[in-house]
Amino acid sequence: MKKRVINIFENIKQKPEVILIKTASEPFIDENFFYVTGLNKGLFENSVALLYPEGSIDIITTNLESESAKKASANIKVYKNEKELYTILKELLTKVTSIGINVKNITYKDVLKLRNFFPNKKFLDASQAFTKARLTKDETEIEKIKKAAKIADKTMKSIPEILHEGMSEYELAAEISYSLQKNGADKSAFDIISSFGENTSEPHYTHGDKKLKNGDFVLCDFGACFQRYNSDITRTFIFGKPSEKQKRMHDTVLKAQKIGFEKIKSGVKADIVHDAVKNYIDNTEFKNLFIHSTGHSLGMVVHDPGIGFNSECKDILQKNMVLTVEPGVYMPDYGGVRIEDDILVKKDGFELLTKSPRALIEI
Amino acid sequence: MKKRVINIFENIKQKPEVILIKTASEPFIDENFFYVTGLNKGLFENSVALLYPEGSIDIITTNLESESAKKASANIKVYKNEKELYTILKELLTKVTSIGINVKNITYKDVLKLRNFFPNKKFLDASQAFTKARLTKDETEIEKIKKAAKIADKTMKSIPEILHEGMSEYELAAEISYSLQKNGADKSAFDIISSFGENTSEPHYTHGDKKLKNGDFVLCDFGACFQRYNSDITRTFIFGKPSEKQKRMHDTVLKAQKIGFEKIKSGVKADIVHDAVKNYIDNTEFKNLFIHSTGHSLGMVVHDPGIGFNSECKDILQKNMVLTVEPGVYMPDYGGVRIEDDILVKKDGFELLTKSPRALIEI
Repeated sequence: MKKRVINIFENIKQKPEVILIKTASEPFIDENFFYVTGLNKGLFENSVALLYPEGSIDIITTNLESESAKKASANIKVYKNEKELYTILKELLTKVTSIGINVKNITYKDVLKLRNFFPNKKFLDASQAFTKARLTKDETEIEKIKKAAKIADKTMKSIPEILHEGMSEYELAAEISYSLQKNGADKSAFDIISSFGENTSEPHYTHGDKKLKNGDFVLCDFGACFQRYNSDITRTFIFGKPSEKQKRMHDTVLKAQKIGFEKIKSGVKADIVHDAVKNYIDNTEFKNLFIHSTGHSLGMVVHDPGIGFNSECKDILQKNMVLTVEPGVYMPDYGGVRIEDDILVKKDGFELLTKSPRALIEI
Repeated sequence: MKKRVINIFENIKQKPEVILIKTASEPFIDENFFYVTGLNKGLFENSVALLYPEGSIDIITTNLESESAKKASANIKVYKNEKELYTILKELLTKVTSIGINVKNITYKDVLKLRNFFPNKKFLDASQAFTKARLTKDETEIEKIKKAAKIADKTMKSIPEILHEGMSEYELAAEISYSLQKNGADKSAFDIISSFGENTSEPHYTHGDKKLKNGDFVLCDFGACFQRYNSDITRTFIFGKPSEKQKRMHDTVLKAQKIGFEKIKSGVKADIVHDAVKNYIDNTEFKNLFIHSTGHSLGMVVHDPGIGFNSECKDILQKNMVLTVEPGVYMPDYGGVRIEDDILVKKDGFELLTKSPRALIEI
């Protein structure tokens, strides 16, 4: 992934001679390790990647990962214990005076250790360079996200058949997870949200024992992780006939998403999209019930570093950014509706990556 | 979880007036946030918990999590943006001069921000106190791990019925994940390893397209996550009739595990257990093919902070520690065998938490 490494260096103002990525123990693994190496398999706890300006990479890892590491175009060194790791690092970095680190994804403990072993070297913050490089996706990345979106769509389409009275939220989560993996996902992109009734009013509720009953909203928010790239889709179904109020809630969110879609194209500021969506909702009976951002960058991480559709983000949409568009309204003790899709920004608009029907499906 | 907070403070030498836990974005979430609050639900990105010596807790989070946060016995504050978060923190910490942080699970970026906002306060490393507090499990934790072990057992027992010629590794992973969740797991404890044939020789391989054929080893390593606590079990099956060599490999690993078990009781040094297991294997034809530690602490994280069964760990086993015992042998390009169980250390021995049959099952 030479091109990606070169691109990261091009995005740094104060250039270090080398960039050091250090993973800690699960879950404190900097995903940039995989971004630069392109490795699809392996855990790579407590591993190091050294990146050089001309695009080459050294990987220093344990023998648990050395087989997997061979799939990368990199110079691989294997260490047995921490002492050996730092001995190898010292050798590789003998002539280096400045080291870039990703302050966002490295633990403070690792920084303290690096400082201790390299008291005379200068550490520079390279985090912005990773963020900038990953802001727009290359062809390989787009293909993987498209595949992840396709898998999520397949699963979403199967949900109406799965739902039945008395099923519990966690059973639905099990079915969704199973379907994602049967359709080719490596795993769920994140903890599946499969909430019923009033539980749909908690945006980050996942799933519990609650049983499905007539008239319940069913909110399904999940994604596929395919070769380390994620999709993220939400649909809200109604189990039975919707009330007039439920219909209006769903219509409002659907319309809000449409308003967001109309704004999206390369060159537009992110906050413009969010403000349009929020203003629309705040002029309905559901005023003040849209309590999160309109969307986020999507990639190796579900909330990928980059830009977000919120009123504080003045960044400009660029071609080949991948984002979600996910308005919602949440009435405490009543229920919530969210509709979320993944989009690829194009010059004059966008390409919709998730394609499941968005109209309110009555089950 | 007042008792846990008090216990953490009791485990610090240089006592701060307050301990601050800061989570970043997924996956950089310090699980100690959940250890001290006892919260089972919610993501709690970019949230703060302030712990006080007498056991009380402040939670500062966004309105995405405020509903979930109410389930904790804590004083809850809600912030809208980062500026507001730090304003709240400044108010709460006005009179405080020393702040403990968990250097292991906080990002360097968050430390830089805290230092910037609180230039005159002293930051102390509280990471050892968290590790020490979590080294032995309390009753609530043991109950949750036992439940997670029971779920994993149920799933493991169902695998022989699931396996069929031509099925792919990822299909098996889907079945395992489904079974775990149907049996009550919130999710898989970690990326499921379901490898066939020569792929079983890579300890951290997860699963791919490989299809099951007669004579293959089938290595299944997975766990259930139940209310944030994990189990971790491995069994190696044989699809068809085992060769003499395969039988010997499996017998060796099984015997190695038994030798480890015989050493385990409170008061024994961790390295004694590992060395006994490793010496046994190294005196067989499978010399040098046991390439990892004999086990690790298990709890909220699969590789829980604490002790490990390896030759460098001189820590002493204590009552109510939970660990895995997982010898294995790995022949490159041939295959591997691993057998892993979860145990609770007792005064005079241990309690086995995972109970699936360990003899080589021919399918």
